[in-house]
Amino acid sequence: MAIANRIKQNLTGASLIRLVADEGLQMRQQSDKPVWDLSIGNPVYEPPQEFRNAIIDFLRQDSSGYHRYMPNNGHLSARAAVAQQLEKELGWDSISPDCVMMTVGCAGGISLTLKVLLDPGDEVIILSPYFVEYKFYIEGHQGVPVVVPSTPEFQLDIAAIEQALTTQTKAILINTPNNPTGVAYNKESITQLSDLLRAHKDKTGKVVYLLNDSPYYKLMYDESSYVDPLKHYEHTILMTSFSKSLSIPGERIGFVFASPTCEDLESFVPAMAFASRVVGFVNAPALMQHVIPKLVSLPTHVNEYKAKLERLGGALKEAGYEMVWPDGTFYLFPKAPGGDDMAFFHALKEHRVLVVPGSGFGWPGHFRISYCVDDSVIEHAIPAFEAVAKQFLS
Amino acid sequence: MAIANRIKQNLTGASLIRLVADEGLQMRQQSDKPVWDLSIGNPVYEPPQEFRNAIIDFLRQDSSGYHRYMPNNGHLSARAAVAQQLEKELGWDSISPDCVMMTVGCAGGISLTLKVLLDPGDEVIILSPYFVEYKFYIEGHQGVPVVVPSTPEFQLDIAAIEQALTTQTKAILINTPNNPTGVAYNKESITQLSDLLRAHKDKTGKVVYLLNDSPYYKLMYDESSYVDPLKHYEHTILMTSFSKSLSIPGERIGFVFASPTCEDLESFVPAMAFASRVVGFVNAPALMQHVIPKLVSLPTHVNEYKAKLERLGGALKEAGYEMVWPDGTFYLFPKAPGGDDMAFFHALKEHRVLVVPGSGFGWPGHFRISYCVDDSVIEHAIPAFEAVAKQFLS
Repeated sequence: MAIANRIKQNLTGASLIRLVADEGLQMRQQSDKPVWDLSIGNPVYEPPQEFRNAIIDFLRQDSSGYHRYMPNNGHLSARAAVAQQLEKELGWDSISPDCVMMTVGCAGGISLTLKVLLDPGDEVIILSPYFVEYKFYIEGHQGVPVVVPSTPEFQLDIAAIEQALTTQTKAILINTPNNPTGVAYNKESITQLSDLLRAHKDKTGKVVYLLNDSPYYKLMYDESSYVDPLKHYEHTILMTSFSKSLSIPGERIGFVFASPTCEDLESFVPAMAFASRVVGFVNAPALMQHVIPKLVSLPTHVNEYKAKLERLGGALKEAGYEMVWPDGTFYLFPKAPGGDDMAFFHALKEHRVLVVPGSGFGWPGHFRISYCVDDSVIEHAIPAFEAVAKQFLS
Repeated sequence: MAIANRIKQNLTGASLIRLVADEGLQMRQQSDKPVWDLSIGNPVYEPPQEFRNAIIDFLRQDSSGYHRYMPNNGHLSARAAVAQQLEKELGWDSISPDCVMMTVGCAGGISLTLKVLLDPGDEVIILSPYFVEYKFYIEGHQGVPVVVPSTPEFQLDIAAIEQALTTQTKAILINTPNNPTGVAYNKESITQLSDLLRAHKDKTGKVVYLLNDSPYYKLMYDESSYVDPLKHYEHTILMTSFSKSLSIPGERIGFVFASPTCEDLESFVPAMAFASRVVGFVNAPALMQHVIPKLVSLPTHVNEYKAKLERLGGALKEAGYEMVWPDGTFYLFPKAPGGDDMAFFHALKEHRVLVVPGSGFGWPGHFRISYCVDDSVIEHAIPAFEAVAKQFLS
């Protein structure tokens, strides 16, 4: 065996995301009939016309030096534009661009942040159901993921988090609004968590960073109901991207914003630059950084996604599915009729409809629907959902 | 202390690259007089006009889905164009696009490849003088860097490499033509290394991968003299990028090519896709992938760099500097007159000229010049080099 054992195990092990992709591939190879694929979080919309225009205008300028290396944290113009937009969104005064680091997407930002924070053996609390990559990010930087289940309403279980906190806890990684549930943490969840982390610091002297992986915060169905951890806890770090809000996930442009009140901020900023080099990202793609100032405040397709949710979620409810209604994102995480998410997945597959079993998120008995798809996919999938519900609920 | 100790040590430790950058910043802040900066490998040329045209043409198409996620290894069109170009360069038939993985620059490719190959404790041989990031890449994936010095002519010291090989050796990471020396490994170096690695496999049963970090192979001053490890050793993996050949290092577009004869290739390919996700890159920037097919065969500024070398290297020789003459890249690695590279660095700094002390590459007593700069920088630096040589050689 030549490639690393730890990688090989992951490839041959029971990765559900991989199982779903493989099943989809097989279905497509075995038949020309369409597959109604609700398994992937890949926005169906095109980027706004402003995106193309901004790039074309930029390239037509008499420019020089624009495609070269820049400071690893990114161009000041991009960081300043993001800082200004955050001032508006948070209602804060004069956010320093130094608190903003442009990254290779949101995933790149999470990876760098963990690289900067974790010494071997440091613990990071994650909440189930969780995005499966979290464990790999944490373990990749020699940290230890500690999984705490959410409440049945997919809010934070503060007592369970309190139980999980130790003197080795370096961070808690949350995702609001959430993949796979679509639910955003409410005020009670966020304020109680903030109080808990402050009490932990008082007791142990240890700061626990609140890492908010939030690529979907612009996709809240009621913008005003978003409870931003930055406003509630001083040691919060936001990781986000333009992937979902501008429908450009392939372009890998995102940023990390460390609250100006963050513990050890003065080390964090140069450490992120250092980490960018040694993880191999070096910097976020230059061209995207140049056009971001023209794009930071563009509207998203949030109303379109909401309409898709209402159609699909409404039909599922009528068919007898139980679910916590999402606050945003483009995910829905209903209970699997009958309770066995794998059996449900396979039954649905017979109708050429793909979803992801909840077991893939550490939460069996549910399944995830990505409804960032054409309406026609939703319309074709609904009869399948109805038929399979009958099969399992009768 | 809140950020990781291991990161903090690196920030506060004696990083010479950082020292040079800090000195440059201080010089610029303390005086309006120009700094003649020969310390950074950031190409001075603009990308070719074809680069801008290709992007603009692409964005003007009636396209859809082009900025979305794609398979993690990259778009087939980009991988096929690279494979076709490699067929021409290597004189090989029908290279499968599956052997090509588009990456976030060359550094991203090195990081992913090491992630895929290394189990904790696996050893990777690197040759001094070395690119300082190598140690961090290897340690970041829990490998152990084993440093072997080059010969005085900056060729491979085969006997020393033989001594360093153990049953824990997973790979040897070479860089030809080389940063910081500018020297390319000759046929003797590459064939003897290949024979040595084959003999090691016969003896121990263990394959040692030959990783060729080669962002500069298009910048050989005599193209025909480039000895490509791919042609000599069956378990070779090339990591490269368009950063230096197209002057677009900020755009982060490169690729990894695993020889079709590589051990465990069938695992390597999906493992790279998996690693892309869990390291957080996800994929190489989509837009760059779309335009690469139009750019793979464009000429580089190799003649311009050669002229710069002849002017600067010639002047240094006349001033009494000793050096191994480069075969390519845009680096020159002369001996520091007097033998103390730090003293030389500081003396040169008094003339507002910046270079990197060889100690930063694990090779004291030398210094690195990056001559990917305007001719005016070279002309202003030459008198300083002459003056400092007199000071140390008198």
